[in-house]
Amino acid sequence: MSLNAILNAESVAVIGASKNETKRGYQTIRTLLDHKYEGTIYPVNPKEKRILGLTCYARISDIEDDVDLALVATPAHTVPSVLEDCGNEGVSGAVILAGGFGETGEDGKNLEDRVVITARKYGIRLIGPNTSGMINCHANMNLVGMRDVPKGDIALLSQSGNMALSLITEAKLKSQKGFSYYVGVGNEADIRFHEYLEFFRQDPHTRAILMYVEGMRNGREFLQQAYKTTIEKPIVLLKSGRSSTGKRAAGSHTGALAGISEVARSAFERAGIIVIEHSDELFPAAEALSSLPPIKNNKVAILADGGGHATIAADVLTDLEVDIPELGAATQTKLREILPAAATVRNPIDVAGGTDSDPTIFADCARIILQDPNVGGLLMVGLFGGYGIRFAESLAMAEEDVAHQMGKMVRARRKPIVVHSLFNSEKPHPLSLLRYYNIPVHDSVEVACKTIGVLAQYGRYLTSYHAKTNFVFNWAAKAKSDCSAIIAKARSENRRYLLEHEAKRLLRMHDVSAHQDELARTADEAAEIAEQIGGEVVLKIVSPDILHKSDAGGVKVRLKTETEIRKAFKEIMASVQRYRPLADIRGVLVAPMAREGIEVIIGTKLDDQFGPVIMYGLGGVMVEILKDVTFRVLPISPNSAKKMIDEIKAAPLLNGFRGIPACDKKAMRRLLLKCSEIVESYPDIEEMDLNPVIVHEKGLSIVDARIILKSKKCG
Amino acid sequence: MSLNAILNAESVAVIGASKNETKRGYQTIRTLLDHKYEGTIYPVNPKEKRILGLTCYARISDIEDDVDLALVATPAHTVPSVLEDCGNEGVSGAVILAGGFGETGEDGKNLEDRVVITARKYGIRLIGPNTSGMINCHANMNLVGMRDVPKGDIALLSQSGNMALSLITEAKLKSQKGFSYYVGVGNEADIRFHEYLEFFRQDPHTRAILMYVEGMRNGREFLQQAYKTTIEKPIVLLKSGRSSTGKRAAGSHTGALAGISEVARSAFERAGIIVIEHSDELFPAAEALSSLPPIKNNKVAILADGGGHATIAADVLTDLEVDIPELGAATQTKLREILPAAATVRNPIDVAGGTDSDPTIFADCARIILQDPNVGGLLMVGLFGGYGIRFAESLAMAEEDVAHQMGKMVRARRKPIVVHSLFNSEKPHPLSLLRYYNIPVHDSVEVACKTIGVLAQYGRYLTSYHAKTNFVFNWAAKAKSDCSAIIAKARSENRRYLLEHEAKRLLRMHDVSAHQDELARTADEAAEIAEQIGGEVVLKIVSPDILHKSDAGGVKVRLKTETEIRKAFKEIMASVQRYRPLADIRGVLVAPMAREGIEVIIGTKLDDQFGPVIMYGLGGVMVEILKDVTFRVLPISPNSAKKMIDEIKAAPLLNGFRGIPACDKKAMRRLLLKCSEIVESYPDIEEMDLNPVIVHEKGLSIVDARIILKSKKCG
Repeated sequence: MSLNAILNAESVAVIGASKNETKRGYQTIRTLLDHKYEGTIYPVNPKEKRILGLTCYARISDIEDDVDLALVATPAHTVPSVLEDCGNEGVSGAVILAGGFGETGEDGKNLEDRVVITARKYGIRLIGPNTSGMINCHANMNLVGMRDVPKGDIALLSQSGNMALSLITEAKLKSQKGFSYYVGVGNEADIRFHEYLEFFRQDPHTRAILMYVEGMRNGREFLQQAYKTTIEKPIVLLKSGRSSTGKRAAGSHTGALAGISEVARSAFERAGIIVIEHSDELFPAAEALSSLPPIKNNKVAILADGGGHATIAADVLTDLEVDIPELGAATQTKLREILPAAATVRNPIDVAGGTDSDPTIFADCARIILQDPNVGGLLMVGLFGGYGIRFAESLAMAEEDVAHQMGKMVRARRKPIVVHSLFNSEKPHPLSLLRYYNIPVHDSVEVACKTIGVLAQYGRYLTSYHAKTNFVFNWAAKAKSDCSAIIAKARSENRRYLLEHEAKRLLRMHDVSAHQDELARTADEAAEIAEQIGGEVVLKIVSPDILHKSDAGGVKVRLKTETEIRKAFKEIMASVQRYRPLADIRGVLVAPMAREGIEVIIGTKLDDQFGPVIMYGLGGVMVEILKDVTFRVLPISPNSAKKMIDEIKAAPLLNGFRGIPACDKKAMRRLLLKCSEIVESYPDIEEMDLNPVIVHEKGLSIVDARIILKSKKCG
Repeated sequence: MSLNAILNAESVAVIGASKNETKRGYQTIRTLLDHKYEGTIYPVNPKEKRILGLTCYARISDIEDDVDLALVATPAHTVPSVLEDCGNEGVSGAVILAGGFGETGEDGKNLEDRVVITARKYGIRLIGPNTSGMINCHANMNLVGMRDVPKGDIALLSQSGNMALSLITEAKLKSQKGFSYYVGVGNEADIRFHEYLEFFRQDPHTRAILMYVEGMRNGREFLQQAYKTTIEKPIVLLKSGRSSTGKRAAGSHTGALAGISEVARSAFERAGIIVIEHSDELFPAAEALSSLPPIKNNKVAILADGGGHATIAADVLTDLEVDIPELGAATQTKLREILPAAATVRNPIDVAGGTDSDPTIFADCARIILQDPNVGGLLMVGLFGGYGIRFAESLAMAEEDVAHQMGKMVRARRKPIVVHSLFNSEKPHPLSLLRYYNIPVHDSVEVACKTIGVLAQYGRYLTSYHAKTNFVFNWAAKAKSDCSAIIAKARSENRRYLLEHEAKRLLRMHDVSAHQDELARTADEAAEIAEQIGGEVVLKIVSPDILHKSDAGGVKVRLKTETEIRKAFKEIMASVQRYRPLADIRGVLVAPMAREGIEVIIGTKLDDQFGPVIMYGLGGVMVEILKDVTFRVLPISPNSAKKMIDEIKAAPLLNGFRGIPACDKKAMRRLLLKCSEIVESYPDIEEMDLNPVIVHEKGLSIVDARIILKSKKCG
């Protein structure tokens, strides 16, 4: 495991060690000593003899023994020479704290490149630069100088030191959970997110991974690794920088391409990642997922001691797509037996004062509810934990009893319980007891809902897990030599795109039923081809110099008679010559008019972070104005293709609607998969646009197809 | 002021007073005594002589002096006779705690009706039933038995006792603000939301109103009163029960019609109400609005000491439609002078370590930023308040200095500051100081953003305040006798709708240019009318028995020649007779084919909570599948009409798009206003549907119009 020597380093050299209490070169050593780091610490500073009782070395090469890890606390411009020293000493890894690299512009980027080249030369792996550092909690190796980082089984990967501090502070003050590792990922100059993931996947101390991300360099590898990880350990992720101002803020911060797109979101979720939108929910989600079983059937019961919180919880869980099923008749009967007449027992369950004088009724209710096979988890909202505060002190003992009982229920039944208590901030003992049993408690109804919501979401992912969604390309495996020849021809003519009939030919060779349009060089030929086709036809100009055919007056539709066809041919030629007098005109494509149907579009392109992605949506005005489209990172599975078709807002249209017959969704699905196959087959393809595609009751017609090639050959 | 005698009662009779510590009849008296209520307390219970040292009366009629208010703590079935007693004693108001009324079903509803009738007979105003009670904090009149309710200037109206308890607990633990009143509105059997609003509008102790609502009985009056209130005092409102399960939970709870709809949301916001979606944000929003000036120009600067929080804040504020403008050049220069080179000074401002050793730089930054005329408010995110915890204890003094300086800036400049601090939960002193100066502090970035966001939202409302949006109908003022005659004729024929040509005639009489379609009784007449019209025509069946003309085969379009018209006439007659052999057929409407244009629809209906509302959206498949529509409570102003047209997703289509010319938005706006006028003119109208309306480059065509009348005459 290549990162082991760094993340579990047995010796650390602190380059830039200091006696000044305000410096990281002091604070780190102090913290390592205070926390009783079991490895060896080597302060390095030519000006000092001893620091905090430790021998100080002038240079790293003066250290006699092997050094696993160097913490580099010196300014940016010194880093290349420091790494040279480290390399000569055989150091395995370095954590580079300084900013002033890629995040600051061109000069910084060049410096960062130099640092990476130096590191590669010596095989040194780098964390950062521009990071707050790294902590291995179980080895007491705290290189951040943050005190009281609670130990636990959540691995934290963050691109913001302040966000890490927020999350650690939250863990400390509001939970009984903690961290296995913290890594400030920084600029990802060398070690990338996916490598950390692989380390944490195998790390025995880690049960969940918590990520704060602004930008990411290797989106594709990250997805592949995340997909492999989430089946074993949950990943919770917040990606900020959605807005343009947010991007600006992030850009000046991590130096990476920021911004969460539709693509990223759908890709992350397909990889099984729990994507979080509110920073308030980030730690609670990780806390729950690290210690509670996922909900298998997406069904949750809400137990409340009053209306308001139950109503809000029902709204929020509904938004989170969690079911709140009506309880079984037997369950309702049992609840009725112990609750007053005014209680509601369907779900949400409102005890209606039934617990006021005896909170242990809560435990009885919880037991009855969790016995219902239709209930996968329990959310309790309201005053619990505060009966001793609100009503009578003696009730606190009864609440403690309830906490013990409920804790054991979670263990016995493997069904999670999450609690909202408006008294949480007062830190009553019954709520600490709940946490002892891994029952999370929150004073926000919304956060409590989200917490049980992510347990349901992770459960949904695991039960529908699909072994084919691995985000791995088998480049060119299904390439056909005839198609490669079409691309080669375009290259030989210095074209960066295929002509329409070439693109359609390529599609046909992959069994996509694109019209066999024929090229006519004269009006006579056009009339002849039209006669063979029969019925109405379309004429479209073919020229490597004209990409937007309609704008050039190069398209004529609904042509019936020979006269019409000859006239249209001449008009097209005249119009195109006016539009671009020197255009290399190859002729005019004669195609049958597409039958009636529903217009859709498919596009593929290269995403900066994830590589090839595919877009699907309704055609025409819909897509341009309403943006009713959906994205997937390629390649896609049959399952993904099906979901894409069903998830756009206009999807019901394809099922038949108000006299419009249902259209051939199977053919549509097949086409999406074929597009995936084609992009996978020809790494030269940069973009492919099928627009419009007309989907008929039976089959579909690809009216126009455009394939753009990459600017230079790359794999 | 009719509610004064209740909400400021000088004497309270506790009906159902008790010596049992677990009973409300004990707890209330105890709390009134403990809190030193200045009025007189009369325990009423036939079984006791003295309670907590006070003389106990057998019946309310035994009390010699006047009693302002009765707190009724006896079971539901006793309430009518208790009210008889109260009435005879001349009591002004009663708070009825018991549940078991309208919220439980038909029997409860009947009991509630009896209670209201009794109360009306004696002129007693009622709070509740099914309420946790009422508190007047400044008079120390606490009828809820909740301890330590912090005093302040927020009036709290809640339909859930637990939600009230949550908000009060939050105020107590996390802020320095408090409440003027709390009223548990309960079932709204007598006093309604809008009456409380009017009281709080005039109440000198109240500066903001905080509402938790599940259902509402008089939506229209509430809007009118809210509109009048929000120009003076902000209203913050959370309405739960959006989801069907949430509705179910609320229904069993308040007995009122629950559910926030598109209509409610847009109406609330038009009335200037700040609608909150997350319960976490409810108290923070009220806290800020009660004590800080609104932001006049919607522009906020973000000041951060690290990247992550700034990036998240930028994202969230963007979602909240708050501008984050780039700072002026002079401001940037001044900031550069005091911050390190690595700092970002555009906005968000990242001090990049510039405050690590001297937090007072924060105050200097804040001063420079707030001096920028383009900045309306400041959001500070990150570690502030925790420098003394994170770095060195001595820094806490410097932070205290910053708090004093910033507090004075807010006072001097009337520009609000809101602070996020990840150390907030540790309650450091500098943060308490900020609160002392009305600077809210939150440990959630999202809540901090929302807090400054509502100050901007309220500012937007006040600067765009429109005196015409008063939600008041001037019923029938613009009615035309000829139109009333059309409606009367339909009524005389026992029809609940107007025939198409009647509806169009009514529209024309209100200057809406609906086609003057003519009725043909024979094929000859149809041919003759068509010739007069010229061009293509449409034939449509006219029959009081056929509402869905197309389904009956009663519509034929694009008819050109006389032969086509005669044939179509016969086909329609044959088809309709097959469809409904006994239909009363009045003839066939001959109308010109509408010119090309964009299809839209307008509908009006009666909303259960708000009365007449109007809907507008794109026609055809768009509206049915994509629900791309917008709603307003009627009547609407020209400004609202304009906003409706611009706010649907497909709005860009009307501005001209890809060869489709821009269409006549002015005519569209005029039509919406005319629809508002027509609904206002004829209280008989239940629904009106103009579908489709074709909007042309110039003018528009109302292709079909349908008006449905109320089932019985009502105003």
